[in-house]
Amino acid sequence: MEKENGAKPSAEEETTERWRFGENKAVAAAGGRSIRATLNKVVSSVDENGPRPLIPLGHGDPSVFPSFRTTPIAEEAIVEAVRSAQFNNYAPTNGVLPARRAIAEYLSKDLPYKLSPDDVFLTAGCAQAIDIVVSALARPDANILLPRPGFPMYEARCTYTNLEMRHFDLIPEQGWEVDLDQVEKLADENTVAIVIINPNNPCGSVLKYQHMEEIAKTARKLGVMVISDEVYDHLTFGSNPFIPMGIFGDIVPVVTLGSISKRWVVPGWRLGWIATTDPKGILSKTKVVDSIRSILDITTDPATFIQGAVPQIIEKTKDDFFNNIIHVLRDAAELCYNIIKDIKCITCPHKPEGSMFVMVKLNLSYLVDISDDVDFCSILAKEESVIVLPGSALEMKNWLRITFAVEPTSLVVGLERLKSFCERHETN
Amino acid sequence: MEKENGAKPSAEEETTERWRFGENKAVAAAGGRSIRATLNKVVSSVDENGPRPLIPLGHGDPSVFPSFRTTPIAEEAIVEAVRSAQFNNYAPTNGVLPARRAIAEYLSKDLPYKLSPDDVFLTAGCAQAIDIVVSALARPDANILLPRPGFPMYEARCTYTNLEMRHFDLIPEQGWEVDLDQVEKLADENTVAIVIINPNNPCGSVLKYQHMEEIAKTARKLGVMVISDEVYDHLTFGSNPFIPMGIFGDIVPVVTLGSISKRWVVPGWRLGWIATTDPKGILSKTKVVDSIRSILDITTDPATFIQGAVPQIIEKTKDDFFNNIIHVLRDAAELCYNIIKDIKCITCPHKPEGSMFVMVKLNLSYLVDISDDVDFCSILAKEESVIVLPGSALEMKNWLRITFAVEPTSLVVGLERLKSFCERHETN
Ligand SMILES: Cc1ncc(COP(=O)(O)O)c(C=O)c1O
Ligand SMILES: Cc1ncc(COP(=O)(O)O)c(C=O)c1O
Repeated sequence: MEKENGAKPSAEEETTERWRFGENKAVAAAGGRSIRATLNKVVSSVDENGPRPLIPLGHGDPSVFPSFRTTPIAEEAIVEAVRSAQFNNYAPTNGVLPARRAIAEYLSKDLPYKLSPDDVFLTAGCAQAIDIVVSALARPDANILLPRPGFPMYEARCTYTNLEMRHFDLIPEQGWEVDLDQVEKLADENTVAIVIINPNNPCGSVLKYQHMEEIAKTARKLGVMVISDEVYDHLTFGSNPFIPMGIFGDIVPVVTLGSISKRWVVPGWRLGWIATTDPKGILSKTKVVDSIRSILDITTDPATFIQGAVPQIIEKTKDDFFNNIIHVLRDAAELCYNIIKDIKCITCPHKPEGSMFVMVKLNLSYLVDISDDVDFCSILAKEESVIVLPGSALEMKNWLRITFAVEPTSLVVGLERLKSFCERHETN
Repeated sequence: MEKENGAKPSAEEETTERWRFGENKAVAAAGGRSIRATLNKVVSSVDENGPRPLIPLGHGDPSVFPSFRTTPIAEEAIVEAVRSAQFNNYAPTNGVLPARRAIAEYLSKDLPYKLSPDDVFLTAGCAQAIDIVVSALARPDANILLPRPGFPMYEARCTYTNLEMRHFDLIPEQGWEVDLDQVEKLADENTVAIVIINPNNPCGSVLKYQHMEEIAKTARKLGVMVISDEVYDHLTFGSNPFIPMGIFGDIVPVVTLGSISKRWVVPGWRLGWIATTDPKGILSKTKVVDSIRSILDITTDPATFIQGAVPQIIEKTKDDFFNNIIHVLRDAAELCYNIIKDIKCITCPHKPEGSMFVMVKLNLSYLVDISDDVDFCSILAKEESVIVLPGSALEMKNWLRITFAVEPTSLVVGLERLKSFCERHETN
C-alpha cells in the first residue's frame, strides 16, 4: 500500500497488512448489546476531575454498599468449603449433588410438587444460565419471544447464536403486564419459548397469580416453553408476593433461571442455576434437557468450592438477613418514587414493588437541550457524576432505568442531583 | 397421531406432540466431542458392585489425591479475599486490575519484554479462554489449524461456532513435534490461527526452542496467529524446559492461554487467562482484541473474590510447593513408562517429560478379542475398574491417553491391573 504522498509504507503498516485474522463483526454486534458496553459509554462522559463522587444508579449491584453486605454465614460457608480441600477438583457436568439437592429443596418450598436434584443444573451465575438456555434453543429457523423492556443479555446471546428474537411489550399502564394479544400474534410454528422476568428488571414490577396463569395458558396454546428468569426471587416489597412460574408447570414446561447473586447480594460469586420445573417431564421427552447437558459438557462451570458452599448458604442464612435487605429496598424504592414524582420531565408509570429498578419515561418536550435518552444520560453523567441507564439499551428509547439499590445516603444525593439537573434543563 | 392398533393417543403423547421446541442437534454434536462425554461413557461400563476401587487414569485432575493437595497459601488467599467483602461485586469485563497485573508480571518473567495488565483478560479457567478465543475467530469461512492428537475442547468449540477445523499431525517418532510441511499444505487464505499445546496434553511432550521458532516463522509466513495453550506451564520434568511461545511474539502475534488449574492443582477454582503476547500490537490493530472484549462483555466471569486472591496466590506460593509437584510427577511418569514398556500390546513412542499424560499406541494384532480403542477402554473399565481415555476422543483411533497424575500408590495398582488385563487378552 502506498501512502498518498507516494512514500513507501512503513514496516509497521506492512506488518498489519499481512495477517489473515481480524475483527469478528457478528461478535461485535452481540457485545454492543450488553449493558456493560452501554454503561461503559455513559461512564466515559463523567468528568474524572470533577469534585463529587460518582453515584452509580445504572447497574444492579449494590454489594459494595455497607447496607447490602452479604451475611457472614455465606462468607463462612465459602471459607469452610475452600479449607476442606474437598472441592478443588473439576465438578461434574451438572454440578455437585449436594448443591443441586439444596437448590431443588429451596425451589420446591414454593412449588406444589418436589423438584429432584436432577432437575437442577448449576451455572456460573444466571448470566451463564441465559447463555446455555439460549444456545440450547438456537436451532436454525427457531425464534424466541422476548419482553420489551427486557434484560439485554438475552438480546446479546440471541444475536450471537442467531436465534431470531421477536419482542412483545410489557404494558406500563397495566403494571407492566405482558401484552398477551401481541404475544399470540408474534408467535408462529417456529417459536420455541417466551421469556418472562419476574420480579422484573428493569420495571420493578411483580406478576400477579392470575396473569401468570394466563401467560402459562397462552404459552401452552402456542406450544412454547416459558423461560422464567427469577434472579430477583423473593425481592418483593409491594402488595404482590413473589410467585414462581414453576407452579404452572403442569400447564406448560417452565425453565426457571436463578442465582444467589441478588438475594444474597453476591453477584461476584457467579453461582446460578437452570431448573426444569416441568412435572410432566416434557423437556426430557423432547430432548431439550439433552441439549442443555451437551452445552454444559463444553462450557466452564461455577467454581467447585462455591458449589460446595451452597447447601450451607441456602440452609443457614437467617430470615433476618433477607428481611433487612427487603426493608432497605422498600425504603429506597419509596424514596426514589417520591423524588421522581416531583420531576416534571420524568414520569413513573408504576411504583416499583420488586427487584432493584424502576423504569421511567422521559418527556423530551419539557427539556430544552436534550435530544434523547442517550444524550440525557451522557450529559447527566458529565454534569452531575450520576449514572443511569438509557432505555435504548433495553429497546425503550427515551425511557430510563434507575436503580435504587445503592446506599440510602448516596441514593438521596444521586436523586437530588438528578432532580436539579432536570430543573436546570427543563423549559419554564 | 393414531396408534397402530387404532387406539386414541394417550394424554401423555398429546402432551409431547404439541410442543414446538426440541433437541438442538448442532449442540449435541459439539457436546459429543467433549472428554467429559467420552469418559462418562467409559465409566458407565464399570461394574458398580465390583470389589475394587475405581482407578481414574482418564482425566487430568489429581486434586483429590493427598500428594497433589494445593498449597495452604492459595487456600488462605481465598479466605482472605472472601472475608474482606471487597470482592462480592461484579468484576469489570477484563477482570480486576491487581489480578491482571499479577498475571502480567508472572508471564513476563519468562519473556524478553514486559506484558501490561491490559494484555491480560481473566477467564473462568483455560476452558473459557478456549471458548472465547475460538468465538472471536469464528468469522464465516475462516478456518483454524488444530493439532492431532489434541484437546477436544477445541474441536467442540469449533463445531459449536462453525469454525472450520483442519488437523495437522504431531509426529510421535519426533517427540511429537508439529508436522510443519503439512501445516503449510493445510493453510489457505482463510486460515486465521494455529493451535499449539505446550507442555502437551495428551502427549506429555515439551517443545524445544528451535522447533518453536520454526512454528513461529511458519505461522508468520502463513499470516496466522499462534494460539499457545500453556495450561501446563512449568510442569516439565525431562530435559526440555518450559519455554513460552510468547518469546517469539516479535515474529508472530501469540495468544497465550493459561490458568492456575494445573500448576496449583486447583482445576475447580476456574481461574484462567488470555494473554496477548504480541509486542507489535498487531492483535489490537487488527481488532482481534476488540472481538475478545466483545465476547467477554456477554460472557460470565471468574468469581470476583477468586480474582481478588490471584496476586497473593501468584506472589506468595513457595518454590517448594512447585518443586514437590514436579517431583511427584517425574516419579509417576517414570513408573508409568517403565510398566507400559513391558506390555506387549502397548507401545509408548515418547517418554513423557511434561504435563500429566502419556499417549500410547495399541497394537490390536496382539489382542484376541478387542476390536478397537473404545472397546479396549470399555472392557478394561468393566473388568478392572480402571479408566483410560480412548484415543478416538482425540482423533487418534487405536491409541490411548493415560494420565499418571494420581496418587502414586493408586498409579501402581492401576497400571498393574492394566498390565494383567493386557496379558489376559493378548495372543500367546
Ligand atoms: C434479569 C436478569 N437476569 C440475569 C441476570 C444475571 O444474573 P447473575 O449475576 O446471576 O449472572 C441479571 C443481572 O442483573 C438480571 O437482571
Ligand atoms: C490442553 C488443555 N487446555 C485447557 C484445559 C482447560 O483448563 P482449565 O481447567 O483451566 O479450564 C485443559 C484441561 O485439562 C487442557 O488439558
